[in-house]
Amino acid sequence: AKMVSEKCLAKGSAAPGPVPKDKIRIYSMRFCPFAQRARLVLAAKGINHETVNIHLKEKPEWFLAKNPLGLVPTLETPAGEIIYESPITCDYLDEVYAGKKLLPSSPYGKAQQKMMLEHYSKVVPLFYKIPMGRRNGDDVSGLEAELKEKFGKLNEDLVKKKSKFFGGDSITMIDYMMWPWFERLAALQLEHCMDGTPELKKWTELMWEDPAVKACMHGTDTYKVFLESYAAGKPDFDYGL
Amino acid sequence: AKMVSEKCLAKGSAAPGPVPKDKIRIYSMRFCPFAQRARLVLAAKGINHETVNIHLKEKPEWFLAKNPLGLVPTLETPAGEIIYESPITCDYLDEVYAGKKLLPSSPYGKAQQKMMLEHYSKVVPLFYKIPMGRRNGDDVSGLEAELKEKFGKLNEDLVKKKSKFFGGDSITMIDYMMWPWFERLAALQLEHCMDGTPELKKWTELMWEDPAVKACMHGTDTYKVFLESYAAGKPDFDYGL
Repeated sequence: AKMVSEKCLAKGSAAPGPVPKDKIRIYSMRFCPFAQRARLVLAAKGINHETVNIHLKEKPEWFLAKNPLGLVPTLETPAGEIIYESPITCDYLDEVYAGKKLLPSSPYGKAQQKMMLEHYSKVVPLFYKIPMGRRNGDDVSGLEAELKEKFGKLNEDLVKKKSKFFGGDSITMIDYMMWPWFERLAALQLEHCMDGTPELKKWTELMWEDPAVKACMHGTDTYKVFLESYAAGKPDFDYGL
Repeated sequence: AKMVSEKCLAKGSAAPGPVPKDKIRIYSMRFCPFAQRARLVLAAKGINHETVNIHLKEKPEWFLAKNPLGLVPTLETPAGEIIYESPITCDYLDEVYAGKKLLPSSPYGKAQQKMMLEHYSKVVPLFYKIPMGRRNGDDVSGLEAELKEKFGKLNEDLVKKKSKFFGGDSITMIDYMMWPWFERLAALQLEHCMDGTPELKKWTELMWEDPAVKACMHGTDTYKVFLESYAAGKPDFDYGL
């Protein structure tokens, strides 16, 4: 999964060549939590891939030609097939590639993971609203209470299932789908929202130990710098390179 | 798929018994377009099922105990498994039951249908916003232009693919996922938005001929009465029974 340069490509850059026959390409941005979902699946399954990072403020013309929405993650296959939207890219990778299967094989097991993801998608906006509210000097205690309540439900879910992870006693797809925002919790100054949810906290501790998580992570200090640059309207996509 | 009564069950009603061993149960509402997606899949695949209609304004306690979100469609299996969110229910039914497969078998084919659905999910709100705006006496020409533009993209998709339906020359899952709002187009007074999109219009004509569509449809006059009752805040869930 090495590449010549991790630096992002912007408007005016030359388009990368065709995707090599034995690889899949991911268009990503190093600090994007949605792209990280697909990067986690690539890492967990040991999929031979190459990464092209995109300047999300000044998107290359050739990238918009491939995906008019200009979203990361986007996958491109050697046949030129384009796949986007993070859950869709993750399911695709899990279906196509051998190695550890991350989604359950039973239809009901799959449906359960999709329902959990649907619930989780209502948690995600809070990870953006709270820091933005703070920056604007708003009272965010209501939003924090909301996040704590959502964390409480996730905690309850682990307690009820008596399992370490959200799909059982080993990591499955839903854990990787939820993880990227938990990795940023300290940088977002939201760690205290887990004070009342010991099982959820334990889950984060186990997740930190996962090799795929370790392969895709950035440190809290790095996230802090990036998030600050992002909030200031000048995201430093190449920070640390 | 017959049942004793189609009348909806409300707060205070007695809970239905366990789901018979050879059936699956759908909790539905006769005029709900999301529930209709699952009803179309049940009909298209000829799945042996029973229907329990829910009073969505005064939901039965026993229904909220099964699904705290109180959404339709919800499926219940003889084992007591609960599945909700319309795309999740439809995928589940397609995976579990024999008969015509509605989703493509290839991972890329599946990913394409999921991406189309994602795009379509941005069209759906317009079917609600425009009639609501009109009711409020707002100028809805901007919203109508937006709907026409979205219809234009759908039309373009059919033209590019040179296919009758959105997944090829026969009906697949994505067609059923999109259909329910097109069935209501006349009742919503939005038919003129298809004036510039002949291939999309042709698609609706072919869809009207489909046996599953015929089995699940209501007439425009019925929708008009229901939508009027809905807009007035007193939805007549049992209209026509």
